[in-house]
Amino acid sequence: MSEVYAARRERLRERSSAGGSATALVSRPANVRYLAGAVPHGAVLLLGMDEDVLVCADPLDEQSADARPDQALRVQTLPAPGGDCAVAAAGLAAAQGAESLAVEEHHLTVARHRALGSVAPRLRLGDLGTAVEQLRLIKDEEEISLLRIGAEIADQALSELLESILVGRTERHLALELERRLVDHGADGPAFTTSVATGPNAGRRGHRPTDRRVEEGDFLSVCLGAAYRGYRCEIGRTFVIGTSPADWQVELYDLVFAAQRAGRQALVPGAACREVDRAARQVLDSAGYSEGLAPTTGHGVGLEIDEDPRLAPSAMGKLDACVPVTVEPGVHLPGRGGVRIDDTLVVRPEADGGPELLTITTKELLAL
Amino acid sequence: MSEVYAARRERLRERSSAGGSATALVSRPANVRYLAGAVPHGAVLLLGMDEDVLVCADPLDEQSADARPDQALRVQTLPAPGGDCAVAAAGLAAAQGAESLAVEEHHLTVARHRALGSVAPRLRLGDLGTAVEQLRLIKDEEEISLLRIGAEIADQALSELLESILVGRTERHLALELERRLVDHGADGPAFTTSVATGPNAGRRGHRPTDRRVEEGDFLSVCLGAAYRGYRCEIGRTFVIGTSPADWQVELYDLVFAAQRAGRQALVPGAACREVDRAARQVLDSAGYSEGLAPTTGHGVGLEIDEDPRLAPSAMGKLDACVPVTVEPGVHLPGRGGVRIDDTLVVRPEADGGPELLTITTKELLAL
Repeated sequence: MSEVYAARRERLRERSSAGGSATALVSRPANVRYLAGAVPHGAVLLLGMDEDVLVCADPLDEQSADARPDQALRVQTLPAPGGDCAVAAAGLAAAQGAESLAVEEHHLTVARHRALGSVAPRLRLGDLGTAVEQLRLIKDEEEISLLRIGAEIADQALSELLESILVGRTERHLALELERRLVDHGADGPAFTTSVATGPNAGRRGHRPTDRRVEEGDFLSVCLGAAYRGYRCEIGRTFVIGTSPADWQVELYDLVFAAQRAGRQALVPGAACREVDRAARQVLDSAGYSEGLAPTTGHGVGLEIDEDPRLAPSAMGKLDACVPVTVEPGVHLPGRGGVRIDDTLVVRPEADGGPELLTITTKELLAL
Repeated sequence: MSEVYAARRERLRERSSAGGSATALVSRPANVRYLAGAVPHGAVLLLGMDEDVLVCADPLDEQSADARPDQALRVQTLPAPGGDCAVAAAGLAAAQGAESLAVEEHHLTVARHRALGSVAPRLRLGDLGTAVEQLRLIKDEEEISLLRIGAEIADQALSELLESILVGRTERHLALELERRLVDHGADGPAFTTSVATGPNAGRRGHRPTDRRVEEGDFLSVCLGAAYRGYRCEIGRTFVIGTSPADWQVELYDLVFAAQRAGRQALVPGAACREVDRAARQVLDSAGYSEGLAPTTGHGVGLEIDEDPRLAPSAMGKLDACVPVTVEPGVHLPGRGGVRIDDTLVVRPEADGGPELLTITTKELLAL
């Protein structure tokens, strides 16, 4: 794997040099992990003049085994505890003779940025912008295979839950049960706070589980994901509790299903992100649900659960092959509940069979 | 509760005015929650010229019930989704006629700070510093009672775990089991990632649970906490697995216990934070364990699990009454394991009985 990280750093160095900075400081944790293979707590990565250095707050032998960085990197620990690795890295850059250092202005706070300026007053601080996030957009097959395993784990956890008795159990308990099953099947942990929403809560995006119990006739919507070796996927499904769903439930489900399918079918290399959003959104719009829709119908996933690209009306840019995204439209009717359907897919050319569905749990409306 | 939040905002307004800014923008989530009673996702609080405004990214009816802010606050939602509430708040301040706005430079990123400057170019941006964090240091009795309930929940979850069979189970499973029990007993959720460490991992600070299974003769150290209505506490204990601990285990345990007791006994109003740290640290030092000790022996708790004050050799400041802190020295011997003992206590005057221990699980060395 070491060559992978070295190649990523090399691509970043080219971008940074093209932007006028011979050195760069990466502080956003997911970005450090992407370039260094691991991100010990508080660590930052310096792409230096002479060599690249991972500056860590604590000695590595105090870190967990899964926090081992790329062995090709020099690792330096802060001389005194409690310091800021970014400030130390700026000092290193200055000591290496650098004149300019590109930093992640969208991640560094004003106070930290000022501290960098104080420790290395002659260093011109530039902006690296979201250069690393842009490198992270298109995944290699190794990254996709980690997402695929994560999705399998989430599918499995969900399928086991569906076999158990649900009526009378609280949202909180079902969420914890799902998280336990994720770990049972090999996840590092949940990719994000598992959402379980019943009755009037169902279909609410990002709903935090409450003590409400599952009742007959409820919609039940769940959204969960596994983190697997750092990579995070997402699946969301909505079910009905009881033998036969009400007419309004079937209608609403079919509508959201149609919107989600339209979004999935729009996932082709070269498609504008806003067009994918529109494909899903207009199905809901034309049925009269334009009010109260979520601002996005999907987003990229990877080392973070919510990363670029964004599938939204104002989104810029186009999709590329090998970009994993969620497609997750939903409708929530205040007081009644609603439906969300959410898959993680990888954009693939039509010649390769079109979008690759990672989360394969059925999207039929199941009555549980 | 509304008067409580209004009074907190009034105290902050006084500090901000004294610093030369008639208006202030609070963006750090725990600080927003402290002053507004809730922090809907992405929300910021403007202490304005005319009135205080909670600027939210989404309409409140899309938020969970536990995210309801102080009803005395005006709530404003962003006109378009995807915007930055802090930028909108700066625009509001300018529209109210403010000339200066104090912001949290230790929380706002360089990029957001610049966006504030662009939307309101005539507004002089100052630094609010850690004014809200300083207000949060001393807790009122209502806050302490929430911490007390959280500590009871954690004690209960831990005591139930101790009654179950441990040998053969993995760190990950035990951690999840503890988190489930926290929720069972009424916690919002875990206050932080539960740490379960066995054998050679035992005693490592912040150890992330692995697939290692509990074995006879192991040290087992656990650290957990409940979040209860936003307030977070912490308890850590170390046990021995099997009928009788080895001599080195008893010795190490007694030593850490003595250090932790010395730290607890040093918790008096007016004590220097570094003296509390020293009280605990010198016990370990004088037994030859000065190398590899954690940089702090304790820290404040409240709306965040790790807040001021810091009990460390370089810490400034003194303890006040009604400040809740952890006391958590530990020793980890690489390859062998170790011991951590961690309590949450509230500093109280001697006349009131001295430090109030919130986490009451026994600190005898139990063989499980």
